[in-house]
Amino acid sequence: MLGLMQDWPLRIHRLIDHAARHHGGQAVVSRSVEGPFHRTDYRTIRARSLRLAQRLVREGVVPGDRVATLAWNTWRHIEAWYGITGAGGVYHTLNPRLFPDQIAWILNHAESRLMFLDLTFVGLAEKLFPSLPHVKRFILLTDAAHMPATALPGAVDYESWLDEADGDFDWVAGEENDAAGLCYTSGTTGEPKGVLYSHRSNVLHAMASTAADMFGLRSVDKVMPVVPMFHANGWCLPFSAALTGAGLVMPGPKLDGASIHEVITQEGVTFTAAVPTVWLSLLQHLEATGAGLGALQRVIIGGSACPRAITKAFADRGVKVMHAWGMTETSPIGTICGIKPAVADRDAEGMLDLQETQGFPPFTVDMRIVGDDGLEKPWDGETFGNLQVKGATVTKGYFKAPRDSLTDDGWFETGDVATIDANGYMRITDRTKDVIKSGGEWISSIELENLAVGHPDVAEAAVVAARHPKWDERPLLILVPKAGRVIEKQSVLDHIAPHVAKWWMPDDVVVVAEIPHTATGKILKTKLREQFAGHFGVG
Amino acid sequence: MLGLMQDWPLRIHRLIDHAARHHGGQAVVSRSVEGPFHRTDYRTIRARSLRLAQRLVREGVVPGDRVATLAWNTWRHIEAWYGITGAGGVYHTLNPRLFPDQIAWILNHAESRLMFLDLTFVGLAEKLFPSLPHVKRFILLTDAAHMPATALPGAVDYESWLDEADGDFDWVAGEENDAAGLCYTSGTTGEPKGVLYSHRSNVLHAMASTAADMFGLRSVDKVMPVVPMFHANGWCLPFSAALTGAGLVMPGPKLDGASIHEVITQEGVTFTAAVPTVWLSLLQHLEATGAGLGALQRVIIGGSACPRAITKAFADRGVKVMHAWGMTETSPIGTICGIKPAVADRDAEGMLDLQETQGFPPFTVDMRIVGDDGLEKPWDGETFGNLQVKGATVTKGYFKAPRDSLTDDGWFETGDVATIDANGYMRITDRTKDVIKSGGEWISSIELENLAVGHPDVAEAAVVAARHPKWDERPLLILVPKAGRVIEKQSVLDHIAPHVAKWWMPDDVVVVAEIPHTATGKILKTKLREQFAGHFGVG
Ligand SMILES: Nc1ncnc2c1ncn2[C@@H]1O[C@H](COP(=O)(O)OP(=O)(O)OP(=O)(O)O)[C@@H](O)[C@H]1O
Ligand SMILES: Nc1ncnc2c1ncn2[C@@H]1O[C@H](COP(=O)(O)OP(=O)(O)OP(=O)(O)O)[C@@H](O)[C@H]1O
Ligand SMILES: [Mg+2]
Ligand SMILES: [Mg+2]
Repeated sequence: MLGLMQDWPLRIHRLIDHAARHHGGQAVVSRSVEGPFHRTDYRTIRARSLRLAQRLVREGVVPGDRVATLAWNTWRHIEAWYGITGAGGVYHTLNPRLFPDQIAWILNHAESRLMFLDLTFVGLAEKLFPSLPHVKRFILLTDAAHMPATALPGAVDYESWLDEADGDFDWVAGEENDAAGLCYTSGTTGEPKGVLYSHRSNVLHAMASTAADMFGLRSVDKVMPVVPMFHANGWCLPFSAALTGAGLVMPGPKLDGASIHEVITQEGVTFTAAVPTVWLSLLQHLEATGAGLGALQRVIIGGSACPRAITKAFADRGVKVMHAWGMTETSPIGTICGIKPAVADRDAEGMLDLQETQGFPPFTVDMRIVGDDGLEKPWDGETFGNLQVKGATVTKGYFKAPRDSLTDDGWFETGDVATIDANGYMRITDRTKDVIKSGGEWISSIELENLAVGHPDVAEAAVVAARHPKWDERPLLILVPKAGRVIEKQSVLDHIAPHVAKWWMPDDVVVVAEIPHTATGKILKTKLREQFAGHFGVG
Repeated sequence: MLGLMQDWPLRIHRLIDHAARHHGGQAVVSRSVEGPFHRTDYRTIRARSLRLAQRLVREGVVPGDRVATLAWNTWRHIEAWYGITGAGGVYHTLNPRLFPDQIAWILNHAESRLMFLDLTFVGLAEKLFPSLPHVKRFILLTDAAHMPATALPGAVDYESWLDEADGDFDWVAGEENDAAGLCYTSGTTGEPKGVLYSHRSNVLHAMASTAADMFGLRSVDKVMPVVPMFHANGWCLPFSAALTGAGLVMPGPKLDGASIHEVITQEGVTFTAAVPTVWLSLLQHLEATGAGLGALQRVIIGGSACPRAITKAFADRGVKVMHAWGMTETSPIGTICGIKPAVADRDAEGMLDLQETQGFPPFTVDMRIVGDDGLEKPWDGETFGNLQVKGATVTKGYFKAPRDSLTDDGWFETGDVATIDANGYMRITDRTKDVIKSGGEWISSIELENLAVGHPDVAEAAVVAARHPKWDERPLLILVPKAGRVIEKQSVLDHIAPHVAKWWMPDDVVVVAEIPHTATGKILKTKLREQFAGHFGVG
């Protein structure tokens, strides 16, 4: 027997429809790629997205077609998402920081047939288009006045192109399980893999991640996603903000500390989100200038482990850090370090300990840790296990992959290693590939790295396994000094020693000028592991 | 093309699974029907619900079967909901305050085949069971020690009955659109009508209503649903709390001011919800005793219009009132008076003005006001219109009704009249049947009533239309004095006059000892309208 409630498919247009109707005048402010700040609101964004959808249909886009975006976080990128999905298409975000070859490979794999791109990337696109047989037209996210001369096929400025549609149009109807978005993983551990979101999974993700213990967005918030929309959906913040009616502040192409600081204070940003490196650069700017953070209250930090020093620097300025873990494959929020009653009374130090964990999942996600034998590990805060997740916002397989990539009982293998404590707080200790196996026991490279970067002379740290004659693998600590500082190896080791078991201590320290990074700014451990594998003399 | 995200049907067991796994030790405290307070947690509730589901299947319950509950808010009632839906059944909550004949009619209409009932209602059930051919067995929500002698067929105490299941069981699988709950409307305007919730609608309701601008529940909250679970799902608070991992405090059978106060302070309740009359009684208790409200922060008030005096009394005690509107047909949250940026800067008086409105809808609900011609009315805060709603948590038709009860374009007609202001705040002015049509213009009975109860001598007020020779209808004000007070009619009119247009002023005032109420404590206007129709001498 079926219930008698209304049929209301969870399609992405619901989000902007709701925002336009119930929070229509709410501001969406962007630093434009052309330079000046631009102000619009949800009502206008919806109206323009509807025209965009109409225009795309006229362009020949049919349900399921992929339409690529190569763009910064601006109002036009948001319109592209609603317009593409509102035409039944699939927005396919591209990370411009990948190698050009990788971008071309991804575009051909996705078979995206149109591309929206920022002025920044015209040169890149011009280089690539001869090897992109699928992309039929390039729409430059600008207006006629800023349109450059370009050889890109069918090149047109967005505003003129949009003006050809009058908005007398309804969103293209469809099922909630239809594909809506396509995003490739960051390529840290291998080639990027395509994650294909559905309308339903994106809407459920927006609903679940916006809950009070998670993002906790309110309509009085001004939300700035510094995390790019091409990095795992911009952590879905454009959707979450629309659902809540919160204001959006889009930082455009300028992501250095000074520019981010300018936007935060000028626009009264209350809530923001990005990977740790962005915040390092902001905090350096604050230290150098003595500037404050205006109305800022909360910062989501994830993508890689958030060092305690960053959390503390924000706390000292009255800003609450919410450490989050996620993957492209989890839409991306897997866990957020909210406050459960069992830990609510902690003092400042205790809270910093807690905030080193990545927290607990929202409703719609479940997690567990298992051994290599597939058996569940205890939640004792000490036992390492392979982290697996499951839920409405978790992928079951990759685009064009022959089969689902789940365990027999339906869990997705994250490739991360974690502990979970008795209160259910999960802590990432490593990538499966990066964990150091010393005499059968596991050592966390992330924990050692976090401790090392707490040393005043250390700018960046990486711990990798090097082969060892007796213990199979032992940790090697690789350090980059802060500008103008000299690293004393023993001083860093002394800094780490009180916090870890003796057998966790790195066997050696190497100081280097630079550590290699991926396109999303993560440490490229594969490279380091190769380079230093023989450091302890084992071939 | 379909997305590649996991299949994760929105079934109700997800809520308790999530709570048990990620907030397993969180307390659920109840005042038991037997007397003492009872403490359990989500992990235990889930384990017992699973046994309950298993036991129900052994009892012969198959998917779609209705299982009735006639019970107060306690942990056992919560277990019954999860157990019944976990067996594929449909929980059917019964309002014990209805007339016995109505209860029997509803049970026979629902064809519920089992009944869980509290000790309080054994006498009632004994009277009714000869006229209940469908109910095969009565399970008393108590243990063996408290089991009374009763002639009810198959009567058994819940704990002994539950002990017959070992919990080696999986939730019965099904579709998310399967029926999960059945609740009849309050019967204020006619016979109660059956609203049939689905698993999906209840889960989406829990997700949407828990958002930060709505209930805004956090796991550190202690949530007390004073509103009975038989009144429109207990406003879904048991589900919302589980989704969030918030603690639950269940008030059991004692709903007078002193008892509610005892629970709030003893258990550190931070969040509670009920209809205005409950709060009147609590506030009287506070006035009489000088007692405080402990850790209480927020109160949801709805079901009928919340008088300004109640909102102010709570505000004076540092507690935030969130005025809400809903219907059994809307699961029930239709709107909540959260704070949008446009009104965030208001002073105390301005905030009280705002809080007289019922606010704006959560994501998953849309609303509009239309004239009798079906055309949409402007959002100017002045124009009255028939309130219509639509969305994932809104009914499309009634149980066993031959056809859906929606407009041609899919909106549900609420039977309420409202205004909506430029900021999107909706204000209920009347039931369609209660609006006073004076010379073609509409007068709000609710606004006049709210003003009247602000007078210090007035305990309760009702405004009804009486027939008028010149204006068709004119408002008549009916008042009940506070205990020990005498009402001076002119004094009440003087109290109202500064706040409304002259032509809104009641033409006469009648003082009565008592006003008739429905089973849910709402004023029975039908009765009053009949009684006073000829008051101005028109037959
Ligand atoms: N808060 C965090 N702490 C530690 N690691 C994190 C955190 N958040 C994310 N990560 C890491 O980032 C990964 C997800 O990143 P993303 O989806 O961008 O691609 P990637 O895993 O880096 O690349 P690829 O899957 O292509 O190798 C997680 O699996 C985890 O290893
Ligand atoms: N905050 C509020 N202010 C004014 N009226 C409210 C409020 N909340 C709910 N109501 C009234 O309660 C109604 C919903 O109540 P419920 O579903 O319990 O049954 P009922 O409408 O009273 O009974 P029936 O539909 O059987 O006549 C709404 O339609 C509205 O008239
Ligand atoms: Mg990965
Ligand atoms: Mg009704």
